[in-house]
Amino acid sequence: MSTASRTNRQWIYRRRPVGPIEPDTYELVTTELATDVGRGEVLVAARYFSVDPYMRIQQAARNTWEAPHPLGAVQGGAVVSRVIAKGDDVLGIAEGDWVLAYTGWQELARCHVSQVTRLDPDAAPVSTALGALGMPGRTAWFGLMEAGRPRPGETLVVSGAAGAVGSLVVQFGKRAGCRVLAIAGGPDKCRFVQGELGADVAIDYRPLAGDAARIAAELARHTSGIDVYFDNVGGPITDAVMTHLARRARVVICGQVSQYDGGLDAPALGPRFLQHLLFQRATIKGVLARDFTHRMDEYVRLAAPWVKDGTLVAKETVVDGFEKLPSALAEMLKGKNVGKMIVRIP
Amino acid sequence: MSTASRTNRQWIYRRRPVGPIEPDTYELVTTELATDVGRGEVLVAARYFSVDPYMRIQQAARNTWEAPHPLGAVQGGAVVSRVIAKGDDVLGIAEGDWVLAYTGWQELARCHVSQVTRLDPDAAPVSTALGALGMPGRTAWFGLMEAGRPRPGETLVVSGAAGAVGSLVVQFGKRAGCRVLAIAGGPDKCRFVQGELGADVAIDYRPLAGDAARIAAELARHTSGIDVYFDNVGGPITDAVMTHLARRARVVICGQVSQYDGGLDAPALGPRFLQHLLFQRATIKGVLARDFTHRMDEYVRLAAPWVKDGTLVAKETVVDGFEKLPSALAEMLKGKNVGKMIVRIP
Repeated sequence: MSTASRTNRQWIYRRRPVGPIEPDTYELVTTELATDVGRGEVLVAARYFSVDPYMRIQQAARNTWEAPHPLGAVQGGAVVSRVIAKGDDVLGIAEGDWVLAYTGWQELARCHVSQVTRLDPDAAPVSTALGALGMPGRTAWFGLMEAGRPRPGETLVVSGAAGAVGSLVVQFGKRAGCRVLAIAGGPDKCRFVQGELGADVAIDYRPLAGDAARIAAELARHTSGIDVYFDNVGGPITDAVMTHLARRARVVICGQVSQYDGGLDAPALGPRFLQHLLFQRATIKGVLARDFTHRMDEYVRLAAPWVKDGTLVAKETVVDGFEKLPSALAEMLKGKNVGKMIVRIP
Repeated sequence: MSTASRTNRQWIYRRRPVGPIEPDTYELVTTELATDVGRGEVLVAARYFSVDPYMRIQQAARNTWEAPHPLGAVQGGAVVSRVIAKGDDVLGIAEGDWVLAYTGWQELARCHVSQVTRLDPDAAPVSTALGALGMPGRTAWFGLMEAGRPRPGETLVVSGAAGAVGSLVVQFGKRAGCRVLAIAGGPDKCRFVQGELGADVAIDYRPLAGDAARIAAELARHTSGIDVYFDNVGGPITDAVMTHLARRARVVICGQVSQYDGGLDAPALGPRFLQHLLFQRATIKGVLARDFTHRMDEYVRLAAPWVKDGTLVAKETVVDGFEKLPSALAEMLKGKNVGKMIVRIP
């Protein structure tokens, strides 16, 4: 029995970080992968890797929406790959096809064909399956539309507005007829959200030094009341927004990235704000991408043409090199990306 | 022109308290009230006064759901009174009738008949118009049913469970088929919520010394996940509940009484918790009684028979003496009442 194999590099999640991701959080290992594909299997070679904030959430010590990511295993994650071999019985997918699969941080993977989704490179650039037409896109769309319920003329505030999800929420908010106040870090991101995404106002939180009172004062310069708040970051930015909610405001909690590097295990302190919900009869709702997985087709049917014709900006920050995966994740958690952070094997 | 008058005592809201209500917050004044009733007017003599947490909210320095209560004016509030005179053209109300009106903390009041609601003493004790069949009842019912959406078999946690609203929520939760965990302060209240209201579990937070971790551990002894949380108090009790929400939990913010004696002006710090909403895809919603004023008839039609036949316990703590109004409010804010706090003119 032949047992052909190929060298495969993998990033193993080795050690739970307490604060930011550290050099010993991951270990790069080289293994041999048996490449003989069995019935129903495909062998794929990774090209684009997703790095996402949820990866750091899954490194919390306690259960979050599920148990922590297991130690000693390949870091999970969505990957866009090319099919390099397939079982004789596999139909509908050919060698050379682009596919999306949750094969994690490894160069090669063998998996059952039911675990891959074929991508059409003519419909949109395949890397967008990790961003604007993938999990972040679905989160932005359904989070805003279903939980935020934006109405024309309302004021929408988006935190993390230059990120993978936030950059889409800004644009969806404009399509919905909202006045969009985009909060981002630094002048480059502010130019991006206003100049390229169409936000009405860009607020750079960096010179405000994480001071909720100063951020609130800046918000007050631009709005008398926030109808919808799409929150990707938490912390002092969210503290500031809570004090400026309008009557019957809807707050969508999509992420709390300011808290991920330690705050999930040992929560930071912040000002109590539930009284504002009472006064304004406001609602806060947590949303996760997985709650809308069954509606992905509905979203893609709408958004793929927008990506193709360029009316939806699908910004990416692409880092080249498999070996850069852990550092790209760490940088993304510090907000170094604009749009979707992707690691590419050139 | 005759100008008959009667001596009238009034409690004037004089000075904004910074912390708890103080002796100089209110001033008792004696005035003369012209008692000649004009067209469309009634003259009423107060018998039962409501003291409510919202009165302290309205003493916050900044706008809450409306502008602060004006200084130098009679403290507003709902009062059950008897009609002692009426204009000749007033129909449908007779001298001696019981009425509910928002005449505030004064012994006598002259007002337009459109401002009073006639009460039927045969339908239920008239004082219940301030509690179980009044604003607290409406808040408990619609807050739980509309925002909490309880389902049979779910676990409902109620904070301030022995209070005016909480004591009703416990009972409504049982009617809805929930398992009810009632949090109250002290053994007497715990016996009340379990023995008289039917809570499945009573948790006395006092020995837990306001320590969220200890309260959370106690909750964990009784439930693996909270589906509905009806919050009247905020603070460490709410901090504890947030860490034990079940998937798609609904949190109803009805009150935050632990924060009223100063925390609305200078918010206290507490642990950040929005990540739990994300993990559990939970919802928090603020509710105010006024949002359901237009549905009062719907509630009373259901609940008045329950009060009359005794299947809804409409517990009251009655303090005798007009002069006791400010101290009764202060005591209520410290949790000295069981059920609805009422001041009576004997």
